[in-house]
Amino acid sequence: MPTDDDSSAEDRLIARYFRPLAMAPGAFGLEDDAAILTPPPGCDLVLTTDGVIAGVHFLPNDPPENIGRKALRMNLSDLAAKGATPVGFLMSIALPAATDEAWIAAFAAGLGEDAKHYACPLLGGDTDHTPGPLSVSIAAFGTVPHGAMVRRATAHAGETVVVSGTIGDAALGILLRRDPSLAKRWRLPEHSAAHLNDRYLLPRPRNALAAAVLAHASAAMDVSDGLAGDLAKLCRASGGGAEIDVSRVPLSDAARMALAAEPALIETILTGGDDYEVVLTIAPNKLGAMRAAADKAGVAVTEIGRVTAGQGARFIRDGKALSLARPSYSHF
Amino acid sequence: MPTDDDSSAEDRLIARYFRPLAMAPGAFGLEDDAAILTPPPGCDLVLTTDGVIAGVHFLPNDPPENIGRKALRMNLSDLAAKGATPVGFLMSIALPAATDEAWIAAFAAGLGEDAKHYACPLLGGDTDHTPGPLSVSIAAFGTVPHGAMVRRATAHAGETVVVSGTIGDAALGILLRRDPSLAKRWRLPEHSAAHLNDRYLLPRPRNALAAAVLAHASAAMDVSDGLAGDLAKLCRASGGGAEIDVSRVPLSDAARMALAAEPALIETILTGGDDYEVVLTIAPNKLGAMRAAADKAGVAVTEIGRVTAGQGARFIRDGKALSLARPSYSHF
Repeated sequence: MPTDDDSSAEDRLIARYFRPLAMAPGAFGLEDDAAILTPPPGCDLVLTTDGVIAGVHFLPNDPPENIGRKALRMNLSDLAAKGATPVGFLMSIALPAATDEAWIAAFAAGLGEDAKHYACPLLGGDTDHTPGPLSVSIAAFGTVPHGAMVRRATAHAGETVVVSGTIGDAALGILLRRDPSLAKRWRLPEHSAAHLNDRYLLPRPRNALAAAVLAHASAAMDVSDGLAGDLAKLCRASGGGAEIDVSRVPLSDAARMALAAEPALIETILTGGDDYEVVLTIAPNKLGAMRAAADKAGVAVTEIGRVTAGQGARFIRDGKALSLARPSYSHF
Repeated sequence: MPTDDDSSAEDRLIARYFRPLAMAPGAFGLEDDAAILTPPPGCDLVLTTDGVIAGVHFLPNDPPENIGRKALRMNLSDLAAKGATPVGFLMSIALPAATDEAWIAAFAAGLGEDAKHYACPLLGGDTDHTPGPLSVSIAAFGTVPHGAMVRRATAHAGETVVVSGTIGDAALGILLRRDPSLAKRWRLPEHSAAHLNDRYLLPRPRNALAAAVLAHASAAMDVSDGLAGDLAKLCRASGGGAEIDVSRVPLSDAARMALAAEPALIETILTGGDDYEVVLTIAPNKLGAMRAAADKAGVAVTEIGRVTAGQGARFIRDGKALSLARPSYSHF
């Protein structure tokens, strides 16, 4: 008769590795059909979903500790760009039959660190075996005061365009990962190559900046498919344009060195994607307050251009608009 | 320069086929990083996630109209069992490169019908190409009055066990699908075989019963991994047991015929899964009200046994407990 022995391998796996991530009381220890979430009174829930597939968004030999973290951080980056405070996530994971328990343990340990660090607990999940590559799909939730989510569609001509962190590191990192000999061609010392590789392996979502985005930005979006294409999307949604000073786009030392060695990399930097930074527009009179808030949050922000009444995002270098062959990373 | 031509193939696909499903204002026409959802005051949000993978949860040649609907309905069934009213869903879809646009159009059309029928609009999504099989992962959301979600853990000894609809049809349907010659062995007329096949292709979630579950059930869960195993989970969560009269488990005419021809199919019927019915426990004095509410909702409900102070779910036939080799469908 089904008593305790009906607890399947799936249930045991979930209990051992994923239940510790389900700290919220509304997750019911992953032992019910569903979880509950009660947004604070006067708040909207912000919802986003993103995922990773082996061979597409990460390489099968990437450290398992990073895979779940990467998937969660892609979603956290969307929440940061909307000014939202994370409250939890759901996860669907499809595992090839050959996945061993050590892989799952490392995967869950990495994910658990992030769930704790970002105060974003696991609320529920779905685990399956797949004949295909390993994949992880996450739906993440945050809260904002009612009506306050920072949108893409609300930029105005005359505002300043600001971007967090540095741009292009992960896109260079994946090139290096695929062809390590590029480090020599780009004249990168070992620690610079390691920096680029690390930025590809593990996004640094700017959730520390979310409160400043909520308080000061007029429009914002997550930079994940390349600054050029993502900014063009924001412009289109807002019915305006942007003019960006390429020399002001913030680069890491490593990216700067690579670019000096191979100037054509500017295209990769501006369009390669996987940045997980925030691009936002802001009224010039709010810039001081934004800079102070970003400083306090420990996140670098850089003014890179302005919103115009035109169309599209123009990237200006030496007085001329750059012509980008492939402005945005496409999954197709 | 990136103006309109930076709109990628992915964006165009989403706009054409998925934007019509995003009827809720908080979906922002799928044109922002995230969606918003504002639960009515005094309500909890109920969250669940479930998905399908080609070759695991559906066959690659199943009609594309049904694939998205099946994934959505698996989630709707969880919401129904919790007494929740659907409010929307997020979807991640991974498409093999060979997927043609006609497939996507049919997929989206089927899903759109369900989004409308169940008043459960698409709120956001993520579309990728995969080197593996097609997969669809859905996170669905519903609302219940604060604190009122019907849990698994709250059944009490002496209560009656009730199940909706009929049990075992989909499990027999998948056997038939894999070996059509079984129809002859089971002496099924064509329409009976078609009924079983259809129940496998397209779940019938009992969302019409959700209000009655919320009003009257003391505990409930979705039957998706087999009645025997799922009821055992409910018993374990509640710290009790259940005694089920096998002769009262509701069967369709088709399942009854198959069982008459091959009595060993009782195991498949009770443990095969994919039922997407609701099993619930209820105080005997509330049974009348539940029956009336179910009648009004047009959903059959059947009393099949009672909650005991023991352990595990025992299925009694001819005075003896059935011995089930594999009480619950496991994905592992």
